[in-house]
Amino acid sequence: MRSFVLLTAALAVSAMPQAVCAAVSQEVASTEGREAASSLPPLYAAELERSRAFVDAMMAEGVVVPQPKDPGGGYTHEQHKRNFRALHQGGQLYRITGEAKYRDFLREMLLQYAALYPTLGEHPAKANQYSGRLFWQVLNDAMWLVHAVQGYRDIRDTLSAADRKRIDDDVFRRAANFLSQDQVITFDRIHNHATWATAGVGMTGYLLGDADMVERALMGSDKSGKTGFLRQADLLFSPDGYYTEGPYYQRFALLPFMVFADAIERNQPERKVFEHRDGILLKALRTTVQLSYQGYFFPFNDAIRDKSLRTAELYEGVAIAYGQTGDPALLSIADFQGRTVLTENGLALSRDLAAGKAQPFDFRSMLLSDGPEGTRGAVAILRQGEGPSHTVLIAKNSSQGMGHGHFDKLAWQLYDNGNEIVRDYGAARFLNIEAKRGGRYLPENTTWAKSTVAHNALVVDETSHFDGDAQFADTKWPEQLYFSDAPSLQVSSGVIDSAYPGVSIKRTMLMPMIPGLEAPLVIDLVNAQSEASHLYDLPLHYSGHIMEYDFDASVNVDVRPVLGNDNGYQHIWVDAEADLEAGKGALTWILDGRFYTYRFAGNGPLRAILGESGANDPEFNLRREPLIILRAQRNGEASFASLLEAHGSYDGAAEQTLDSRSLVSDLDHVSIGGFDIVRLTLKSGQRYAIAVSHNPDPEGAHSVTLNGETIAWTGFASVVALSGEDS
Amino acid sequence: MRSFVLLTAALAVSAMPQAVCAAVSQEVASTEGREAASSLPPLYAAELERSRAFVDAMMAEGVVVPQPKDPGGGYTHEQHKRNFRALHQGGQLYRITGEAKYRDFLREMLLQYAALYPTLGEHPAKANQYSGRLFWQVLNDAMWLVHAVQGYRDIRDTLSAADRKRIDDDVFRRAANFLSQDQVITFDRIHNHATWATAGVGMTGYLLGDADMVERALMGSDKSGKTGFLRQADLLFSPDGYYTEGPYYQRFALLPFMVFADAIERNQPERKVFEHRDGILLKALRTTVQLSYQGYFFPFNDAIRDKSLRTAELYEGVAIAYGQTGDPALLSIADFQGRTVLTENGLALSRDLAAGKAQPFDFRSMLLSDGPEGTRGAVAILRQGEGPSHTVLIAKNSSQGMGHGHFDKLAWQLYDNGNEIVRDYGAARFLNIEAKRGGRYLPENTTWAKSTVAHNALVVDETSHFDGDAQFADTKWPEQLYFSDAPSLQVSSGVIDSAYPGVSIKRTMLMPMIPGLEAPLVIDLVNAQSEASHLYDLPLHYSGHIMEYDFDASVNVDVRPVLGNDNGYQHIWVDAEADLEAGKGALTWILDGRFYTYRFAGNGPLRAILGESGANDPEFNLRREPLIILRAQRNGEASFASLLEAHGSYDGAAEQTLDSRSLVSDLDHVSIGGFDIVRLTLKSGQRYAIAVSHNPDPEGAHSVTLNGETIAWTGFASVVALSGEDS
Repeated sequence: MRSFVLLTAALAVSAMPQAVCAAVSQEVASTEGREAASSLPPLYAAELERSRAFVDAMMAEGVVVPQPKDPGGGYTHEQHKRNFRALHQGGQLYRITGEAKYRDFLREMLLQYAALYPTLGEHPAKANQYSGRLFWQVLNDAMWLVHAVQGYRDIRDTLSAADRKRIDDDVFRRAANFLSQDQVITFDRIHNHATWATAGVGMTGYLLGDADMVERALMGSDKSGKTGFLRQADLLFSPDGYYTEGPYYQRFALLPFMVFADAIERNQPERKVFEHRDGILLKALRTTVQLSYQGYFFPFNDAIRDKSLRTAELYEGVAIAYGQTGDPALLSIADFQGRTVLTENGLALSRDLAAGKAQPFDFRSMLLSDGPEGTRGAVAILRQGEGPSHTVLIAKNSSQGMGHGHFDKLAWQLYDNGNEIVRDYGAARFLNIEAKRGGRYLPENTTWAKSTVAHNALVVDETSHFDGDAQFADTKWPEQLYFSDAPSLQVSSGVIDSAYPGVSIKRTMLMPMIPGLEAPLVIDLVNAQSEASHLYDLPLHYSGHIMEYDFDASVNVDVRPVLGNDNGYQHIWVDAEADLEAGKGALTWILDGRFYTYRFAGNGPLRAILGESGANDPEFNLRREPLIILRAQRNGEASFASLLEAHGSYDGAAEQTLDSRSLVSDLDHVSIGGFDIVRLTLKSGQRYAIAVSHNPDPEGAHSVTLNGETIAWTGFASVVALSGEDS
Repeated sequence: MRSFVLLTAALAVSAMPQAVCAAVSQEVASTEGREAASSLPPLYAAELERSRAFVDAMMAEGVVVPQPKDPGGGYTHEQHKRNFRALHQGGQLYRITGEAKYRDFLREMLLQYAALYPTLGEHPAKANQYSGRLFWQVLNDAMWLVHAVQGYRDIRDTLSAADRKRIDDDVFRRAANFLSQDQVITFDRIHNHATWATAGVGMTGYLLGDADMVERALMGSDKSGKTGFLRQADLLFSPDGYYTEGPYYQRFALLPFMVFADAIERNQPERKVFEHRDGILLKALRTTVQLSYQGYFFPFNDAIRDKSLRTAELYEGVAIAYGQTGDPALLSIADFQGRTVLTENGLALSRDLAAGKAQPFDFRSMLLSDGPEGTRGAVAILRQGEGPSHTVLIAKNSSQGMGHGHFDKLAWQLYDNGNEIVRDYGAARFLNIEAKRGGRYLPENTTWAKSTVAHNALVVDETSHFDGDAQFADTKWPEQLYFSDAPSLQVSSGVIDSAYPGVSIKRTMLMPMIPGLEAPLVIDLVNAQSEASHLYDLPLHYSGHIMEYDFDASVNVDVRPVLGNDNGYQHIWVDAEADLEAGKGALTWILDGRFYTYRFAGNGPLRAILGESGANDPEFNLRREPLIILRAQRNGEASFASLLEAHGSYDGAAEQTLDSRSLVSDLDHVSIGGFDIVRLTLKSGQRYAIAVSHNPDPEGAHSVTLNGETIAWTGFASVVALSGEDS
């Protein structure tokens, strides 16, 4: 019984204009006919060539379906991954070209899986109870099914009844049952692993005509709708399309969301899945793109930093979204990706791109709420300038983001001039590299990468936020107090009371334009309130080579000690330390021909610690990257006001250096009557105040008088020009 | 009296086709006419725009000729540099456009220099006796003159007699006299500083019609020909066009060589300066290009690593060489540079480039002899593959190269996959960055960058070659024993007996192709012979992140000690140490998605030291880069045989990892009867010997029998397939 129409199998060909179809057939009918393929749009034609090269190479090796043995990165792991890619793409090639060799190859491979699958138990390299059958973790089995079922769909009708039954029963039905029944705990989670599982099971249900299977995928194993694919779409994204685990996982989760939604739309258009929850899936796709710089995702939480928009998940996602919306901005993303997929959507996208219909994608400042209701904090993205080297400040005031979350409440990052200037470490993991613990998360992912001190976030008493308790952390989040994307003064402000007992931390970040100084400028105001005495550490993880600092430091030139014993501190080598009685200092570094000065003032004496990651790392798992920590022992209020100033340039080719030294001579911070006033004196003598009322009323008028000088402004914050140098 | 025709002043315009000239005039006559400039070739048109933007901005600021005060990178230093660029380019703009404003600007600036120059004594920021007048070192004054005189040439005829006399006498004659008389020690050196000085003085002589000045520039201050420009051309380049200081200085010296030669050719064509010494200047230009990877110069000696073919000196050099030769390969270099110069040569080059006449530059394996007679060692360049990511192995068997030379005899480097895999530190200097000791060479340039242990060179008894005595070092050099660029097995072999008393060091590097292994592969054979007992250290400075090593090491996880006290050792942090009784080991790292394994065997026990540069660096002047040192205490012969193997790939976007582990299971080295036999066992079971006879006779037949297995080959070296795995 087959009650559902299948995805793109028939549609893709029938929807193609005749001319293109002819070209495709001619292209594939013989090698001689290949020139005719030039009428295919270049992106699609290149994809066809790429797939053909890959699948042909796999066919030349013959079908290889090994007994599962290795963890991530090992031989059997990689072979089963290559196999699911070959099944997926081989099906597409058969559908497009009609060449029997692809069908025969898939049939043979699937029959070998049919022989293997029933013999499998728990994977020998399993790390926990979430063992797969073909792979060491169940997630990979779900990925296998999502891809394989698409390939099977393209050849299933051409098989003998016996082969079909064999493969239906011993591969796909078993795999779907494994995911939805044996691993029901994963299947019923509200988590990206469950999205993969429900997508694989649901698409299998459509293919096998198993309405029950589809229903379980959509509504959860008990069909109540409390779990399952649709509930995931409700709970995993915020109303702004932000996925709580962060962009690295958002990208990953998007594939099953988009591919399964595409299948639902084709099989059950009455479900209007792309309109579900105000079009959340298409919104999520666009938000994913917004969460990137130079194509690379902001490395929140356990992110692998190599991941960019140039990734298989997003080729599929962009094509499906384009098919739904025809939004020409998506064409420019596809152009950046330089890739597409061999579907009807991919063909339409490639054709329109070749026709010059692309429009720039509107990267812009925005506030992305977190949490299913949008009430669990937010991510503020402040952009300045245009083009690939523009500036981005990110204030991460979002929630923990489940098991892959880091203890980095109110942390920030800065990109400028094409580089990550203020860094997030991402995950401590070498994905799929066997020598590094089988490619899994490394011990240092927990001991360093997740710790608060590994982030640009305030640490209290040398412990991580929520004392490093992830389950507790998931129940708490910051509150986004204010956001403004006004070009002259962008602002984000957030607060959290729960990261440490009895300590309230507020952080306000501003990106002002100040005459006489170069953009970007960042003002960072950190304020902690507590009844008790605490040790406060404010780390800044920067990228670059130290040029100078304006304080006397004791430098550890011949024995390099470690900063602490736990909570990430054990991984920090101490290069230098300085006691700053006046609580002020500045550090200048260079990166890629641009100078940056970090200038800071505390509400009392500070200790500045210059350090580097990499201590207590017996397996050389960590990257070695510099940081500065501002340390303050305070009883009551602790405040840190700092300015990150980009200035000048170094051009080695032209041997020209401009403004290698900060253009600022002094920074001063006063907290008065709930207002924050940061006063900057430039070397030119000009003086400015950045005045923050913390009152969101845009009409509210405020003024303070400091040393006889009155500073008046309206609204949440403003840059106020002061009279010349103090006399 | 003006007895000489001046350079391109008249010629450049007269040689232009009418149509182009019209376009130029139209271009500059009014803003409205700008579209017509589209008939200029794009490269030249862009250069005109760039110059116009620069000079117009300088004019907008008004003439600023400050009292000399600052060292390199400081304000007055940079302003006088900008001024000489404005003088040079302003003259070109006046010549091309005829717009009086450029002439007036130059006149005003030169009159201000005429007022300033006679008042100047030694520079207040001078570092030694080679003080300039305008700049802290005389070299910069020479650079000022070389540029300024070209600009002056373009406007001099249009000035009043009084202005002309004032500028002739109080600027150019004084500057020429300062360089050729007050600073005669520099002027009469055989050194690139003298090339700048003689070029400036000689071109001034041509302009002022001062034959005596020209003669002194060409033949030295005493006109004997023992020094001066022509003698420099004889002695500073080897017969292969290699400049003994290395490519960074070769690039720098080329500008005055080429520009002055161009002036000589135009004023005194009978001198046939471009045919001098078998066309050495044009050969030197081509050799300079050969000494680069991805456009960046091999950072031999005190090199600043940012320097590439995209540098003003080479825009000029490539254009002049193209004017002389019409070689279409130079067009592809200009295309890579994306820049040219506003001369007749630049216009012709730009026109031919736009006409599609460019041919690829033939980067190839070559041996470049060093020394004026080609007898002072050599640089061997072994290239493999094509395109920007091809592989280059460099065996630096050249001489010391004067004061900027490093103690790095028989050192090597490797580039692959677009990256520097086996590194040369270059200079410890932040050029023109004031915070870094005024942009001068840093103390660590002497204590680290020049030291032997900072290079991939054998260190004996923890001291540098020649005991770090540069003057002595300049009298000694290695002997290049053999070189082969046969594609299947490229070889370079060199020896030096004088780096350490009583120690002879021979190093043979091979780049073989071995079935079952990926390219590139490097075999490195280091052999030291001595009557006495010594401590031998063989450092390898690699780029990448450690993946694994196959030995037990003691890792300094919480206190990081320093390796030694002097000769560069004080700058090495020790990360880990291991005693290898069998004298064998392997280290694998990853760089940019590719894995590299360094596998080694010594003729006895080895100690492996994993370290990083950056200790004893109180000003944070050093880059922190990893190294491994193989340490051997030997009485008599010390030998190290190693294999550097590239393997596999990591693709984070596709999440595909291939061959992250070495494909080799064992390396074994035997020295027998003067032969070196390296035997490799691959994990596949295949076995190969790399057999080296050290006998250059290509017909010579050799054989050895090891463990009953006979290995036979002909010639200097060969790869010999052995029977399967040892049984």
